[in-house]
Amino acid sequence: MIKVGIVGGTGYTGVELLRLLAQHPDVEILTITSRGDAGTKVADMFPSLRGRVDISFTDPAKAPLAQCDCVFFATPNGVAMSQAKAILDAGARIVDLSADFRLKDRAVWEKWYKVTHAAPELIAEAVYGLPEVNRARIKGARLVANPGCYATAVQLALLPLVESDFVDHRSFIADGKSGVSGAGRKAEVNLLFSEASDNFKAYAVHGHRHHPEIVESLQSLENASGRKIGLTFVPHLVPMVRGILATVYARIEREADFQSLYEKRFAGEPFVDVLPPGSQPETRSVRGSNQCRIAVHRPMDGDTLVVLAVEDNLVKGAAGQAVQNMNLMFGFPESRGIDQIAVVP
Amino acid sequence: MIKVGIVGGTGYTGVELLRLLAQHPDVEILTITSRGDAGTKVADMFPSLRGRVDISFTDPAKAPLAQCDCVFFATPNGVAMSQAKAILDAGARIVDLSADFRLKDRAVWEKWYKVTHAAPELIAEAVYGLPEVNRARIKGARLVANPGCYATAVQLALLPLVESDFVDHRSFIADGKSGVSGAGRKAEVNLLFSEASDNFKAYAVHGHRHHPEIVESLQSLENASGRKIGLTFVPHLVPMVRGILATVYARIEREADFQSLYEKRFAGEPFVDVLPPGSQPETRSVRGSNQCRIAVHRPMDGDTLVVLAVEDNLVKGAAGQAVQNMNLMFGFPESRGIDQIAVVP
Amino acid sequence: MIKVGIVGGTGYTGVELLRLLAQHPDVEILTITSRGDAGTKVADMFPSLRGRVDISFTDPAKAPLAQCDCVFFATPNGVAMSQAKAILDAGARIVDLSADFRLKDRAVWEKWYKVTHAAPELIAEAVYGLPEVNRARIKGARLVANPGCYATAVQLALLPLVESDFVDHRSFIADGKSGVSGAGRKAEVNLLFSEASDNFKAYAVHGHRHHPEIVESLQSLENASGRKIGLTFVPHLVPMVRGILATVYARIEREADFQSLYEKRFAGEPFVDVLPPGSQPETRSVRGSNQCRIAVHRPMDGDTLVVLAVEDNLVKGAAGQAVQNMNLMFGFPESRGIDQIAVVP
Amino acid sequence: MIKVGIVGGTGYTGVELLRLLAQHPDVEILTITSRGDAGTKVADMFPSLRGRVDISFTDPAKAPLAQCDCVFFATPNGVAMSQAKAILDAGARIVDLSADFRLKDRAVWEKWYKVTHAAPELIAEAVYGLPEVNRARIKGARLVANPGCYATAVQLALLPLVESDFVDHRSFIADGKSGVSGAGRKAEVNLLFSEASDNFKAYAVHGHRHHPEIVESLQSLENASGRKIGLTFVPHLVPMVRGILATVYARIEREADFQSLYEKRFAGEPFVDVLPPGSQPETRSVRGSNQCRIAVHRPMDGDTLVVLAVEDNLVKGAAGQAVQNMNLMFGFPESRGIDQIAVVP
Repeated sequence: MIKVGIVGGTGYTGVELLRLLAQHPDVEILTITSRGDAGTKVADMFPSLRGRVDISFTDPAKAPLAQCDCVFFATPNGVAMSQAKAILDAGARIVDLSADFRLKDRAVWEKWYKVTHAAPELIAEAVYGLPEVNRARIKGARLVANPGCYATAVQLALLPLVESDFVDHRSFIADGKSGVSGAGRKAEVNLLFSEASDNFKAYAVHGHRHHPEIVESLQSLENASGRKIGLTFVPHLVPMVRGILATVYARIEREADFQSLYEKRFAGEPFVDVLPPGSQPETRSVRGSNQCRIAVHRPMDGDTLVVLAVEDNLVKGAAGQAVQNMNLMFGFPESRGIDQIAVVP
Repeated sequence: MIKVGIVGGTGYTGVELLRLLAQHPDVEILTITSRGDAGTKVADMFPSLRGRVDISFTDPAKAPLAQCDCVFFATPNGVAMSQAKAILDAGARIVDLSADFRLKDRAVWEKWYKVTHAAPELIAEAVYGLPEVNRARIKGARLVANPGCYATAVQLALLPLVESDFVDHRSFIADGKSGVSGAGRKAEVNLLFSEASDNFKAYAVHGHRHHPEIVESLQSLENASGRKIGLTFVPHLVPMVRGILATVYARIEREADFQSLYEKRFAGEPFVDVLPPGSQPETRSVRGSNQCRIAVHRPMDGDTLVVLAVEDNLVKGAAGQAVQNMNLMFGFPESRGIDQIAVVP
Repeated sequence: MIKVGIVGGTGYTGVELLRLLAQHPDVEILTITSRGDAGTKVADMFPSLRGRVDISFTDPAKAPLAQCDCVFFATPNGVAMSQAKAILDAGARIVDLSADFRLKDRAVWEKWYKVTHAAPELIAEAVYGLPEVNRARIKGARLVANPGCYATAVQLALLPLVESDFVDHRSFIADGKSGVSGAGRKAEVNLLFSEASDNFKAYAVHGHRHHPEIVESLQSLENASGRKIGLTFVPHLVPMVRGILATVYARIEREADFQSLYEKRFAGEPFVDVLPPGSQPETRSVRGSNQCRIAVHRPMDGDTLVVLAVEDNLVKGAAGQAVQNMNLMFGFPESRGIDQIAVVP
Repeated sequence: MIKVGIVGGTGYTGVELLRLLAQHPDVEILTITSRGDAGTKVADMFPSLRGRVDISFTDPAKAPLAQCDCVFFATPNGVAMSQAKAILDAGARIVDLSADFRLKDRAVWEKWYKVTHAAPELIAEAVYGLPEVNRARIKGARLVANPGCYATAVQLALLPLVESDFVDHRSFIADGKSGVSGAGRKAEVNLLFSEASDNFKAYAVHGHRHHPEIVESLQSLENASGRKIGLTFVPHLVPMVRGILATVYARIEREADFQSLYEKRFAGEPFVDVLPPGSQPETRSVRGSNQCRIAVHRPMDGDTLVVLAVEDNLVKGAAGQAVQNMNLMFGFPESRGIDQIAVVP
């Protein structure tokens, strides 16, 4: 049994962490912070947690984070980097769901996030928390940078291609589609039901922050061929609450059994499910679950490979993967507390 | 051809007024105001209007409202009452889509809207703009108070009952259901897609501002029996953009042919459609149109009458009815510019 | 560990039973039948179950139901009553999620379901599976009739009122709202996305089959006052997948502390949650969970009591309650396998 | 004033044709056929048309099609080709909204549609009804093949690129997203609300019938460079009723001012709107309207051009374009009856 704390618990990744951690047999939720809602009972804000989470939000300044074994940051970008050192020094370990430690290249990070990094000395230590790539290093990490939601889906879709040499590495296209919860629990007009419902659009076509994260992470793969990666990434907003589908296009340069390539790469992975040939994964098949399901296609036997990957952006794309990382860090079975079956329909 | 102005054009009733007025053959949209977006082209904010509305939002202080024949207020409550006198004095006529002039009882108004009324001298003059009740008076009005969306649907459902003596007038129940656009284009967490989608709830169960509007208006009907009206009204939020369904329950005291009662009451009404017996109207059958469709039921031949009324909350429940009132005020055919057929599916 | 079988597993209650039973530690799913899809792997039809349910659908004639300890019928009405006797004779116990054994009055049942009952000799033995009323009898039952989805929500909302004497028992109104999954996984035009989305309507206003179920069950309560119950029930279709909200109206005859009445009645109930005064329960607060949440209101301190009850129609309204009944029948802790926290957002 | 008939009026393109034609000042709807619903009043099936369309569905064998000036086929593929000759011989002209005459290459057509073509002698005469390409020929046509919904959006997005020489013509990628109404009003399980809502998936990844239509039409452009076109097309199902967004990717080979290229190509087009640089068109901006809105992007100034095109699949993608073609064929102003402003929100 470990004690955990959550910094920034009123957003969607926060409440999803609470859902998962409250059902985790080895975890006690010691504290959860909120600047704006300190004093409010968690279950008053999220009645779905009535009878399961009995604590109140605590002011960040007063939260007993130093007494935690593991602290989750479910905060906007910029918070974790200011607080990480003190927490690590107190002996706690950190899973940061924000973007603060996702990039190793500080200059790139500062360009995209438009602030000076507050803890550059921790960047090197932070482990990028994609277990399918970094499992061993996550186990020993003090500070894990939990990947972004799109970044998780796109990387899992691309991994077998980047680690081999059958397709062009410079012309990947990832057409991403996300449910609206990916934008967070923010009071913005463009996220209103009346704006997003019965509607579809692309956004951030000029450039999205997950682009450098994907490219840097894939480029630095130990097994990577070293070839330079080129990626066009266009995200779209889907009128649904949860779910990401990444449709990835790659130009085939040499023949291969791509289905087999994917099956072998992910054999034994508890949370990556390579579907049989011909499958077309649905986001709802992973709604509320930590699974990522992948299908591999070659339309009309042409030169373009199409890989489809679905995940729940709040689970494998955020809180579920964070708990998966925590399980690895603390020696729990990797699936503990995150083996819920998707809610269908 | 008349000149019209719109005060407060960035909300949903504003853009809906623009959609209808831009297609009205007898209207020139002279000006539209916005405090926060002055200078922005209307079509930049609402690309659906590209090529059809070429003006920009104007600062309210600089808008040529005095040059208009008709000014629509699509503002939050409290604005119209501050500006109405000056506009009327300048010779323009007003259709106020807010609640400022809907109640005759100033004390009741101030209790529900929690401010002092700024133009009490105009309350008596204002005509409640429900054409099915006040058509003659609307024609001569300088100042029309456009009814609320729920208030329109519930009153049309109740009119034939209140004007006759077959059911108990003290125990009406109106179970209202509205699409999310009824709450306006406001950046509030509870209106986010991720909050309202795949979800259903009641709200304002303790009391909703349309309650006194409905009761006062029905109580004051010229044809009313004079019996005191009692109403329980519970609104609900439906995960759809547009549409209201009011399910109205009444206790039958004396036998009557209720189907016939409704058909006779609304015979000749251009925008009230009494459906054949057994019908169950859908909100989408009026989506984008100014129709209200009504069905009358007596479940299991019991003592309870059930009346179902649907409307588009932004058309017959707001902007469409406002244009209907303008048509009456300026002597245009009542349906001009608001005879669009509903968009189905 | 008990062996269970599911008859009719390709509908929404079937797949929901699979989701819950596959996560139940004391259950082995021995067999699941489908007439049309025999031979198909369950996980091919429902990929959400990949890696969790490895069996295929079996032809009903060949399924080893006699080897089961518990058989669930997730079939259309009319199937369970034909097969129940043979299964009971083989020593298995039954939870019937269809309507075959929900009514004690055979004549009423045959009127509403329009067929002759095939097992009238079992009607008396069948126990109506609402644990909040019949917990003790369910424990000893061989045959449990699992309540309808609306019937569960409406009865839980009405129980404290019917068991006491503060409101008129003859004029209850239940305005029901259900997500579309309540209509089942049937290829019907009116259930298409393009018909049901962005739309709202009432249906079965003339009379719904859950009406006699509610009235008979409430009328026969041991604690009931004996007063005759009158109910008007109008169901509506909400553009969401899961969830029921019942808005129940009752005329107050004598003063009482209704909040306290509800809290006392449901104290200790694991799956009925009486919310604090002023609450307005959302269906999503129970999405995927077995909870029913109830709030009690008295709008504007008038004579009408308004009770709001939400449940997930596929969990507490169907499969979850079925597992709850199974838990009671086999002596497992009542919440085992059905204590999932709702998926929010 | 011309007389028109509609063959197959109970689907979504049928009811959309009715909505538009009923508001068209130069058209009388003489007859509408339905095999299964002959005798039913159109307005009983589609209450949105009450008071606007007063005829009933007619048995196809009895419909006075020969008396029509223009006959629309809103039928499944295979019907128009059987009946076209007789209707043309009777002197009527035809707009076929099905796929029967969209391809010039009969062998390709028969491969994709899996039947023998019933009217091969008419294939050459049929004019592909994309006004932005074939306006002049449409004016003189007896038989117009109305383009498919995806085919319209993708071609409009690609036209300026295919007619010029700045990008690679062999590696186009079109990632298509469509609302569910594109699949028609068919009682299929996968189109149910409970299947399609809160869900997202790709479909027909192996090959979609609009693929050969797009390629053949673009390849045969009079202004085309003659270079061979290669296209990967992956359609996706969006949980919304109406709307298509095509995200088209092209590899830039030579520098150009692509924004200007698009603006010039579509200057003066009444129904193609090239948005300002940086725009990200929403499907709702064309909901219910005949507009196609296009934006041109070059993400991170790289080598990939991204073109976004939105349309309403039932209007510009079907019924609206059919009326546009009719207007051209009969010498009416091109926008007559199809100039409705989109319904937003």
